Amino acid sequence: MNIVESFTCPVPLRHYPQIVLGHGSGGRMMAELIEHLFVPLFANPTLARLGDSAVLPLDGLELRTENAGLAFTTDAFVVQPLFFPGGDIGKLAVNGTINDLAMVGARPLALSAAFILEEGLALNDLGQIATSMARAAQVAGVPLITGDTKVVNKGHGDGVFITTSGLGLVPAGIQIGPDRARPGDAILVSGTLGDHGIAVMSMREGLEFETAIESDTAPLHTLVAELLAAVPDVRCLRDPTRGGLAATLNEFARASQAGILFDERAVPVRPAVRSACEMLGLDPFYVANEGKLVAVIPPEKAEIALMTMRRHPLGQDAAIIGQVVADHPGVVAARTLIGSTRVVDLPAGELLPRIC
Amino acid sequence: MNIVESFTCPVPLRHYPQIVLGHGSGGRMMAELIEHLFVPLFANPTLARLGDSAVLPLDGLELRTENAGLAFTTDAFVVQPLFFPGGDIGKLAVNGTINDLAMVGARPLALSAAFILEEGLALNDLGQIATSMARAAQVAGVPLITGDTKVVNKGHGDGVFITTSGLGLVPAGIQIGPDRARPGDAILVSGTLGDHGIAVMSMREGLEFETAIESDTAPLHTLVAELLAAVPDVRCLRDPTRGGLAATLNEFARASQAGILFDERAVPVRPAVRSACEMLGLDPFYVANEGKLVAVIPPEKAEIALMTMRRHPLGQDAAIIGQVVADHPGVVAARTLIGSTRVVDLPAGELLPRIC
Repeated sequence: MNIVESFTCPVPLRHYPQIVLGHGSGGRMMAELIEHLFVPLFANPTLARLGDSAVLPLDGLELRTENAGLAFTTDAFVVQPLFFPGGDIGKLAVNGTINDLAMVGARPLALSAAFILEEGLALNDLGQIATSMARAAQVAGVPLITGDTKVVNKGHGDGVFITTSGLGLVPAGIQIGPDRARPGDAILVSGTLGDHGIAVMSMREGLEFETAIESDTAPLHTLVAELLAAVPDVRCLRDPTRGGLAATLNEFARASQAGILFDERAVPVRPAVRSACEMLGLDPFYVANEGKLVAVIPPEKAEIALMTMRRHPLGQDAAIIGQVVADHPGVVAARTLIGSTRVVDLPAGELLPRIC
Repeated sequence: MNIVESFTCPVPLRHYPQIVLGHGSGGRMMAELIEHLFVPLFANPTLARLGDSAVLPLDGLELRTENAGLAFTTDAFVVQPLFFPGGDIGKLAVNGTINDLAMVGARPLALSAAFILEEGLALNDLGQIATSMARAAQVAGVPLITGDTKVVNKGHGDGVFITTSGLGLVPAGIQIGPDRARPGDAILVSGTLGDHGIAVMSMREGLEFETAIESDTAPLHTLVAELLAAVPDVRCLRDPTRGGLAATLNEFARASQAGILFDERAVPVRPAVRSACEMLGLDPFYVANEGKLVAVIPPEKAEIALMTMRRHPLGQDAAIIGQVVADHPGVVAARTLIGSTRVVDLPAGELLPRIC
């Protein structure tokens, strides 16, 4: 498979450089948009059939494995701006859904995408976004097999919203859940935190930093597959997106009715991200990530898990940051830079609007 | 299972009668919204686990059938107004996705829902919509097992957008596709056309008619199952939503490279819908439907198919409206009320904005 080229507006679509309501009406204009824009980009025979549903033949899918499960996930992406350093809404939508599948240990099988387009959207922007989605799907090796397009009146949307859903297959024997953390377990992160949220925030706020900060958006399914091959009894896995590390650890602590204690100094944060957080008054542990995972691992497997992650290109900065404790069940605490301990609570409401 | 009761705002949510950005931020407010609003409504153990993906155990799913397929579909719903005679956006989203599965002959297994909420949306409206979705899912017997919620700034959305995705299982031996119509085949509709589009349009335009016109939104999977049991070799099936009967027949004609000729007088249209269409200057064959299907059936099975549909509560007004012909391949023609013949083309662009 070739990685898809960058977007050039196909000839039949050039009469309308902007999205108009007719692009969502089930008529010829919508058919042209789908046939000339989406189908060539996501080139695969199941999507090209354009049936009401995509049908995956089961023969080749190894579905006969004992106790395996189908994973099914959905996520709406409403990020602003649509394009940001290191990615765009399309790449985010593909990688985010692949990661949701990976976090339950599933091998991703297929994706769907539903677009809600605002009248007046530049067709070129849509083309760039769809190209980026197609490229992300190809890089990850996960086909996008079905989709939908709607157009809303100008002023009733925000350029593009994309909802991606995903299907995956969970291998036999995998038991991952936020409620499986046990005192003594180690807590690992796969790399530096805060990159995505700060990349988007700085774009929104018009800030420039000495060092460019790029979104970390990336598909984590191969990292997870290697981790599970080395440590089949991974307890919990989650990609710390909205709410960041703090929200993820609080969810583990609450679901498992265990305490969590981590060391602030052990959490990898790029110096540029740390500076940006200080300038913006943000705690990097609450900032969103898109290409990182948090794992809870049985204590005797912590080192193997760390080594396995570090061998993967997306886990080079992996670190053990803390452990599950019997004290303060349901509560997450951090040992601070000055040696004291503070509670790291779930964020109450809005921190970073529309960063994914 | 009880049919869910109508919506009352749960106590923990009463502090915020309107959606605020914090309801979409991955923190406590979002957790409360999901736990107190969505999870109780869609009560099922897979959803309640709130994992990144829903995992369906395969054991009970009869997935070992030879040559069966998984159906996977997605649809974004952006209808305005959110509430209309006979339904609302939530009921539409559930039934629409079930119908997309049914149109490839699949037995629906599970649904997902992703909400894009506009800041300022009345929580009570969201509650009504989610209640309606839960009720529709329960009536259809298809669980909603995973979801997502995002909130966008006021003025950047339109109350609620809902993207539903669905998974289904296609029984062995079913071969339905828009390219399978052959000259001589009969064309059937399952009931009156135009009800949904006119119900929504009249609400939007503030029109009142002597006879109330209600949306026909309904789940068609049991009707399809009975049809397939009687006529396993159904050629084409589609629910004529956006673009109506005209768009569906044009798609069949084009994909099958066959002509289609139907008799206008044979198409069931309620008198009130016909009057409303005349008043609004609309052709009922282009108006959207949400609880009807168009079927192409081998000629010798047409009567069995008709009888089977008429025995089902959602097919009582079923009719044979025309046939596939060898003439004018790719073109749909109608014999008019005065006996002449006219071409019924694909609509070019916008006809009825945001009716689904």
